[in-house]
Amino acid sequence: MRDAQPITVLGIDPGTAVTGYGVIRKEGRNPLALVECGVIRTRPRDDLAQRLAEIHDGIVELIRRHKPTVLSIEDIFYARNVRTTVVLGHARGVILLAAAHAGLEIHEYPPAEIKKAVAGTGAATKLQIQFMVTRLLRLKSAPQPSDAADGVAAALAFAMMPDLPKIETIRFRTAT
Amino acid sequence: MRDAQPITVLGIDPGTAVTGYGVIRKEGRNPLALVECGVIRTRPRDDLAQRLAEIHDGIVELIRRHKPTVLSIEDIFYARNVRTTVVLGHARGVILLAAAHAGLEIHEYPPAEIKKAVAGTGAATKLQIQFMVTRLLRLKSAPQPSDAADGVAAALAFAMMPDLPKIETIRFRTAT
Repeated sequence: MRDAQPITVLGIDPGTAVTGYGVIRKEGRNPLALVECGVIRTRPRDDLAQRLAEIHDGIVELIRRHKPTVLSIEDIFYARNVRTTVVLGHARGVILLAAAHAGLEIHEYPPAEIKKAVAGTGAATKLQIQFMVTRLLRLKSAPQPSDAADGVAAALAFAMMPDLPKIETIRFRTAT
Repeated sequence: MRDAQPITVLGIDPGTAVTGYGVIRKEGRNPLALVECGVIRTRPRDDLAQRLAEIHDGIVELIRRHKPTVLSIEDIFYARNVRTTVVLGHARGVILLAAAHAGLEIHEYPPAEIKKAVAGTGAATKLQIQFMVTRLLRLKSAPQPSDAADGVAAALAFAMMPDLPKIETIRFRTAT
């Protein structure tokens, strides 16, 4: 495979209170580079609808600023409390909406698969993820808080998957 | 209480495949009037993100056309299949987002409370809801499909609640 066009991936660890994100860039044979990472926080005392608007608008702003072509997002982990999971579904809904409106290619990975791609095991702790994200991207210090590292890990999961046809697809799409 | 300004209520019965809606208008002492009802359908073979965009954009269009000041929406019924409920959460998320962006006052009611408000019992069947919606709004025939009637029922639940302070609140808000 020839070197593809640069690919910018927006990785998201969704949450109603804290949504972690990481933007990474893959350019030719250069090592993966971290462009930005951080969290979108909402206030627990605000209405759910208001919090959803803040999450959505934050994602729209990230897409506007970095123009990613791929959204890589954590899938729902069903073992949690049902009510929490359903509210989390609302947050994922507005994130997927922002990505769909911007025409991003969307990839969803279960949490364990992201951990495995980044740290070699689906049972990796938050500390292990922070350590591996720091190492893989040659950062001077670990992304803080851990939600930001989880967002970066979601982006890395896509970028490091040995699933090259997906990347080819994106290259052809962005070329048209 | 004096007659309030006209209030337009958008009622929603959310669903990933079929989202039912009903727009009703309450003007002074006139009886409640149905403005429009129907459904937003999405294709099961489309990606979830695409379907969420269609639901969101459909709601945005309804808000643009009818300028409601209130969104009255069915809350999640937790006894369903967890996966279905979580996907439904995604759909509710983009609907609440559209309402928040448009500055609507949002009211959420459990399905049983909507049924009780409209048909007198939380155990009312879909047919009973269609019958009561038809009667309460003096329609010539029942809204079809039943999801549309459920959307109208959600709007009626708000309009018929004997919770007058809420309506006062809305009047003062719209006046500023």
